[in-house]
Amino acid sequence: MIPFKVTFLGTGAGLPTLQRGVSSLVIQINREYLMIDCGEGTQIQMQRFGIKSGQINYIFISHLHGDHFFGLPGLLFTYHLFSRQKPLHIYGPENLEASLKAVMHVDWSVLSYKIFFHTINTEIPLDLLDEKDFKVSCFPLKHRIPTFGFLVEEKEPPFFKLRKEALNVWKPDVSTIRSLRLGNDFITPNGEVIPNEVFSYPKDPIRSFAYLSDTAYLPELKSVIEGVTVLCHEATYLKGEEENALSKGHSTALQAAELAKASNVKKLLLGHVSPKILDPQTLIENAISTFENTTVVFDGFSLEI
Amino acid sequence: MIPFKVTFLGTGAGLPTLQRGVSSLVIQINREYLMIDCGEGTQIQMQRFGIKSGQINYIFISHLHGDHFFGLPGLLFTYHLFSRQKPLHIYGPENLEASLKAVMHVDWSVLSYKIFFHTINTEIPLDLLDEKDFKVSCFPLKHRIPTFGFLVEEKEPPFFKLRKEALNVWKPDVSTIRSLRLGNDFITPNGEVIPNEVFSYPKDPIRSFAYLSDTAYLPELKSVIEGVTVLCHEATYLKGEEENALSKGHSTALQAAELAKASNVKKLLLGHVSPKILDPQTLIENAISTFENTTVVFDGFSLEI
Repeated sequence: MIPFKVTFLGTGAGLPTLQRGVSSLVIQINREYLMIDCGEGTQIQMQRFGIKSGQINYIFISHLHGDHFFGLPGLLFTYHLFSRQKPLHIYGPENLEASLKAVMHVDWSVLSYKIFFHTINTEIPLDLLDEKDFKVSCFPLKHRIPTFGFLVEEKEPPFFKLRKEALNVWKPDVSTIRSLRLGNDFITPNGEVIPNEVFSYPKDPIRSFAYLSDTAYLPELKSVIEGVTVLCHEATYLKGEEENALSKGHSTALQAAELAKASNVKKLLLGHVSPKILDPQTLIENAISTFENTTVVFDGFSLEI
Repeated sequence: MIPFKVTFLGTGAGLPTLQRGVSSLVIQINREYLMIDCGEGTQIQMQRFGIKSGQINYIFISHLHGDHFFGLPGLLFTYHLFSRQKPLHIYGPENLEASLKAVMHVDWSVLSYKIFFHTINTEIPLDLLDEKDFKVSCFPLKHRIPTFGFLVEEKEPPFFKLRKEALNVWKPDVSTIRSLRLGNDFITPNGEVIPNEVFSYPKDPIRSFAYLSDTAYLPELKSVIEGVTVLCHEATYLKGEEENALSKGHSTALQAAELAKASNVKKLLLGHVSPKILDPQTLIENAISTFENTTVVFDGFSLEI
């Protein structure tokens, strides 16, 4: 299995506090590091939690509320200070590029590195990035301004790993080995068919991570996130505050659990924790009777997916 | 004496680190709190050092490099989250207002409070704020973009405090007491002149604080900061790096000391400490033989002026 790990840099809603920074997380998938959201102070949180900012080549911004992107101008400027050379790809809603340019007062061309902006403007799920080992897609959420969730999916490896013992018995030639790795059966010289699974280990299950930054309860997302390994769903409000949550474009912990259950995800992470919630355990208690495998994230929380 | 105190929230240059936030300080003068500069993470530093952000009614931004103002959008938004009612006055260079509006994506009129922008655009020292107890002026510095220093000066109190013992002896009437408080002498019924100082305590010396955020060595500032109580001067570079400092629009610790000495200030604070300087004591060593009363500031450093 390739490394596939998420680290939360900021897990609070609205404003940074001494307990929680504002939204940001980093996903390591094989050798790539993806950042989703970049609230104020994210570059400090990266130092705090040992994430090397220079490893990140892709940044995804869910929406243009300050607690999800006010850390981006500082990070982009720090890259320049450190003479970054590698290009950086930024995916985000319309106006992200213009507002970054306005606040940074800099002609992009003077930066030490190249920034590629990819504007997200879609009403249906959309593939954003298609790499060898993984792909990233986005889908619209239901918030007060255009907001997008993200789905990071490992790709099925093209080749099976073969069992040494079987190879020693049957001694296939090089071209047959290639065929076996692709999943084909083995045909002996006298025409006998040896099934591929005699030679190959089963492939690991495909892992995936879905991130719903800020959204009202959106049960129709089931079709998008069905079966994901880890779902991180915002839980800005407590059970019983559904009306208030809806009016603000947010969800309750219980609603997050309901979506997790309906979508058959493996694990639910509750995020975007409001500073008003003094004991995050309350969020768990709201969710756990509906969806058992639930955790509330905190700054520095890290999980192998 | 009224309270007159400075607290440094961020004292690092360029980028925030775990050791130092980026530029920001708060001055308490009597009942007012003034902020100068507001780098990324300033609102967290305020929480960390017990500064109530709601007390601040005036924010001064020295220049539009990110390490001096990227914390402002988040702070302004947090004020709105907390339903701030009091108006806020922001003083800063041209384009500050436009860039904040662009990054915050908000019509100012929807905020819970009113923001008054005061654009600084001057080539000579200029009064910005004239309050009962103090005034604030600005003056141009020499940096890569338009940059301003700030001078906060206590005002001489209009009245002398009177000595009870003398009042008990001479028993002046109410209008004479008013005259004595204004500094006039006392005339006895038979025409004898009793000098005012028999009745009044001497006024405390006027205190002042000058802040030079980012600037190349600028000896002509002597005329502006002559005799200030506390000068905070940037010291981004070490002695011997004068050429490099000049090309970047910065100063060395020695140059800061030279200006402090020439201007007869009482105390020198060295700020804008580069992450490259591992031991801040080196800055002191560079400065102290020229100007003895020198301190290097750190995050949370607080001084009664």
